[in-house]
Amino acid sequence: MEAATHGADHFAELRRHAGDEHPLPEPLVAELRALLGDRLATTRQVREHHGTDISSYPVTPPDAVAHARSTEEVVAIVGLCARHGVPMIPFGVGTSVEGHVLATRGGVCIDLSQMNRVLEVNASDQDARVEPGATRKQLNAHLRDTGLFFPIDPGADATLGGMASTRASGTNAVRYGTMRENVLGATVVLADGRVIRTGGRARKSAAGYDLTRLFVGAEGTLGVITELTLRLYAIPEGMSAAVCAFPTVAAAVDSVIEAIQCGIPIARVELLDALTVGAINRYSKLELREAPTLWYEFHGTPRGVEEQATQMQEIARSHGGLDFAWATRPEERSRLWQARHDAYFACLQLRKGSRMIATDVCVPISRLAECIALTQEDIAKASMPIPLFGHVGDGNFHLMILVDPDSQADCEEAWELNTRLVRRALAMGGTCTGEHGIGLGKREFLVEEFGEGAVGLMRELKATLDPANLLNPGKVV
Amino acid sequence: MEAATHGADHFAELRRHAGDEHPLPEPLVAELRALLGDRLATTRQVREHHGTDISSYPVTPPDAVAHARSTEEVVAIVGLCARHGVPMIPFGVGTSVEGHVLATRGGVCIDLSQMNRVLEVNASDQDARVEPGATRKQLNAHLRDTGLFFPIDPGADATLGGMASTRASGTNAVRYGTMRENVLGATVVLADGRVIRTGGRARKSAAGYDLTRLFVGAEGTLGVITELTLRLYAIPEGMSAAVCAFPTVAAAVDSVIEAIQCGIPIARVELLDALTVGAINRYSKLELREAPTLWYEFHGTPRGVEEQATQMQEIARSHGGLDFAWATRPEERSRLWQARHDAYFACLQLRKGSRMIATDVCVPISRLAECIALTQEDIAKASMPIPLFGHVGDGNFHLMILVDPDSQADCEEAWELNTRLVRRALAMGGTCTGEHGIGLGKREFLVEEFGEGAVGLMRELKATLDPANLLNPGKVV
Repeated sequence: MEAATHGADHFAELRRHAGDEHPLPEPLVAELRALLGDRLATTRQVREHHGTDISSYPVTPPDAVAHARSTEEVVAIVGLCARHGVPMIPFGVGTSVEGHVLATRGGVCIDLSQMNRVLEVNASDQDARVEPGATRKQLNAHLRDTGLFFPIDPGADATLGGMASTRASGTNAVRYGTMRENVLGATVVLADGRVIRTGGRARKSAAGYDLTRLFVGAEGTLGVITELTLRLYAIPEGMSAAVCAFPTVAAAVDSVIEAIQCGIPIARVELLDALTVGAINRYSKLELREAPTLWYEFHGTPRGVEEQATQMQEIARSHGGLDFAWATRPEERSRLWQARHDAYFACLQLRKGSRMIATDVCVPISRLAECIALTQEDIAKASMPIPLFGHVGDGNFHLMILVDPDSQADCEEAWELNTRLVRRALAMGGTCTGEHGIGLGKREFLVEEFGEGAVGLMRELKATLDPANLLNPGKVV
Repeated sequence: MEAATHGADHFAELRRHAGDEHPLPEPLVAELRALLGDRLATTRQVREHHGTDISSYPVTPPDAVAHARSTEEVVAIVGLCARHGVPMIPFGVGTSVEGHVLATRGGVCIDLSQMNRVLEVNASDQDARVEPGATRKQLNAHLRDTGLFFPIDPGADATLGGMASTRASGTNAVRYGTMRENVLGATVVLADGRVIRTGGRARKSAAGYDLTRLFVGAEGTLGVITELTLRLYAIPEGMSAAVCAFPTVAAAVDSVIEAIQCGIPIARVELLDALTVGAINRYSKLELREAPTLWYEFHGTPRGVEEQATQMQEIARSHGGLDFAWATRPEERSRLWQARHDAYFACLQLRKGSRMIATDVCVPISRLAECIALTQEDIAKASMPIPLFGHVGDGNFHLMILVDPDSQADCEEAWELNTRLVRRALAMGGTCTGEHGIGLGKREFLVEEFGEGAVGLMRELKATLDPANLLNPGKVV
């Protein structure tokens, strides 16, 4: 089955075909079993788990799940699937939000979660070599005594391989960049079984085509990442976090624009609308004022942090900022940011039994206030609760459209809202996805954003690297 | 003619064939003439100028030079050359150092220096849209009243298109990244005449394959860049520069390693050996102590800068730093950095009539002191003067091997030294080129660095984008 390519039809189509069986060739199952033993799973429960992400798409299971433990095993699995012409879908922990892991054409899910070792930490060089199944929290726990940290933090505790594959970012990107800037190199198994290294440990290199960036963001459609070299950072000497409420979302956004333009090297600056703050208060037992709010974090030397925070406070005040509550103790800071990362779960409680359709546009920051204001007009007319929050320092914000996943009307309304928002962002020089990726849901927007010429080139790259179209087929292009 | 692929043979081979003529098909000349009028040049002088870079390679002229003034003209030129099966070589101002612009198979040089407009500056979003022939100094002059600057600064006043194509960096990369991190998007003319946009103005995007990074560093072999969107930065409120001499190169390097590990966000930190300092003193009329020296620059808030500088000074002292001379006035700072950028010309004076063979390895910073120490043993045995300097905050340093370009013995000695150095760097997890690119001179090292598998994939990408192998053929892969 191929997913339909327009709007709410995705959902209807997926729902119709989610239970389809694509029996695997018997010999393939036998060969995989011989290779992996009980690390090949074909039970309904395991398959359904691997056909699910955190979007509202219906469960779309693969026909088998192969748990790999080494690059060599991935090579063998890829070789077998290729010989039998069976699709393969790399899988971490299933926290993506655009249907990336859904087995829309059946096939074998390559589960990399058992390849989760931190292989090497070079504290002097501030880099680490990890297997793709290690999660961001696991890496940071491993780094605990080194004085270093890995800054990229999507809401979920995603695997680093999944984060690389979706070009993830999170709350720290305004200061530390995204996975694009923080993957130094990767080991990749190609569709023909070749194993390549795309980069070394040097901080910069002008050697050849940038293969690393070709696989970062490719969503598993060009190869299977089996190792990553990542950049780490010294934990800053000084750190402080603060929360400030504003009379309106526009005032909050304007203050951020001014701060960025002044070159304040703010490490995190998150916007949450009143609805989101309320949901977080209830879910994480906080008592924040239920108003549009910015959450900040400053990193640097102790005096530098003080200076940044003072400047920010002045700017906030001049935009009507109501108060500036500090969280300086590490436990307070952790509690705050954990609550921010739990915003997804907090917001789901706003509508019982709902699933979310998350939007993810990113616009040049000068257009952000306008983009949000127009979007709020849409929200006001919507029939469901729609919390708004985002990484405003990057110009990136999300709506969490809470839909009844069984309601075609809900899905259609959400899709239409998302479409309006994406087109608004594109007209402002923005992108349809700041950090979630294309997956199933944004393929048509990719064409609107880049045009047929560039997307045609992407398709040619796909055909060059995966001529039989077996690596996560039907995603991205 | 095809350049030989081993060692000093490059030079001999190029020298033998540099005067070869590859008469262009008459109809092509007529069609280009009809398109461009007197912006098509075929005189010996113009052709020789366009077959020259700042390396020691012999002049290897193209058969004609086409001065383009628009994307549409580039499309037309590419279409005509493709139809006649004639090679095309994009050209900026010819300041590359690895033979990138040499017409080793003849053909038409596409000179983009007349496409040098700054098309748009978005001060609020800190980005600019430029034509590829604009130079870095021209862009910064244009930005003069905006409070913004573009930080990437290879020694020469290169064009931004050339800088993107070689993935250039310079003295600010330790703080601001390289062209890889600072190109937001590009307009590219492909070999088949298609014009694509690879990215918009959003600060981050997870939309589709990273086409921007595919062309950054491709050295004109995958397409012709005709427009760039670049990231700009707020000129920091506080800035100060300093110079400190050390008893040994090793002591200087160790102090930098410590500073990086402490997370001091130093903006520039350049190492110059005693020979280089002497050459600069004479060329730029400075009176620095002729010892291994670090040149620093700090950016931030006034107090932040003070704090960074104090920390750095303490670290330098603990590594035997001899003095710490400040340049706080803007004119002093400019004079210092202009002298640093003129190091190439200054060093050429160390040996009359010489040309340089520049090395460009970059290693993980923990290996830098050791790499430099072993390299200094090689330098001590060499028959020619070899100044050493570099961007030590990145682990990147250069030798400027001053050769008599007519001496085969010199070229062989230089090539052997370079080969030893590259292999040393690769064994340490480094790269054969931190910022100069592959061009002609490092193709064999590309294979040593990445292996046949990855370079094979690069060749497949080249074949996909340029199946007739007409875009700067024989370079990179």
